[in-house]
Amino acid sequence: MDLEAKVVLAHLLKTQHVAALGTMHGSQPEVSMVTYLPATDFSRIYIHISGLARHTKNIQKQPAVGLMISEENNMNKDPQTLARLSMQGEAKLIDPSAPEYAQIKAGYLKKFPDSEVTFGLGDFNLYAIELESARFVAGFGRVFNLTKHGLADAESAHEQNVGRG
Amino acid sequence: MDLEAKVVLAHLLKTQHVAALGTMHGSQPEVSMVTYLPATDFSRIYIHISGLARHTKNIQKQPAVGLMISEENNMNKDPQTLARLSMQGEAKLIDPSAPEYAQIKAGYLKKFPDSEVTFGLGDFNLYAIELESARFVAGFGRVFNLTKHGLADAESAHEQNVGRG
Repeated sequence: MDLEAKVVLAHLLKTQHVAALGTMHGSQPEVSMVTYLPATDFSRIYIHISGLARHTKNIQKQPAVGLMISEENNMNKDPQTLARLSMQGEAKLIDPSAPEYAQIKAGYLKKFPDSEVTFGLGDFNLYAIELESARFVAGFGRVFNLTKHGLADAESAHEQNVGRG
Repeated sequence: MDLEAKVVLAHLLKTQHVAALGTMHGSQPEVSMVTYLPATDFSRIYIHISGLARHTKNIQKQPAVGLMISEENNMNKDPQTLARLSMQGEAKLIDPSAPEYAQIKAGYLKKFPDSEVTFGLGDFNLYAIELESARFVAGFGRVFNLTKHGLADAESAHEQNVGRG
């Protein structure tokens, strides 16, 4: 993946707010909308979801999930040219007593101040999606298949690029 | 579902351009982005996809799919309040020699003039997703489970409402 694509990928993951979450209901794929926070090294995606929600029940039975984050089409561009990142991974519940819980919650609240309400509800939990692979479409015909190391590499490239100004 | 929700659902389905498509790769759900055209009675969603694309190969092996269409977050609203429609269905190839093909293609080209290029490529095909059920989230806590008849009903309500307007 070239530097430009790495920077676009990292910018997308850092600046977007919602993802399309793919879960399995039996043998039927279902897609729902979730808010998300990426881990700083792009190794995981955190989501904060209700135990009453259908996607959460799906995850509890089958933790393999897909996740897509796409550029918003504010400019009314040809949709095929929109940047989008599809990721595969496994969702794991983060126990509120785990050492990392407080820091992730703080990051989530910083990004989504309105989520303070749902953090106060007993049925909401944080899940970490441990990323295994991804596919980045930087525009029509510009497709990159990535391992989790490729995602970490995009994060580093973005940091260095932003650092250089 | 109340009239307001029906009208919002129909407006969403008629005005958005892209959907998050959930397919299965083995037992792993994957989410990708597609352009789409709804059938006029909301019984099907048409997509025009490349035989070289991963989601198409997934569909050829396992035609059960999920599809989500969501309101764009142009106003930087609380993402939990965004309207979104998740649908379940089965994807079926539309043979170019089928009687309905020309009309669907014309509708697709009208909505996506840039797709004229891909209609000229040998590896692109139209698929109809026959809808079986849907879930409409009209905003935080406003959730409606729908059968395919519920979708048709939303379409009728929207037509009548626009007609009265």
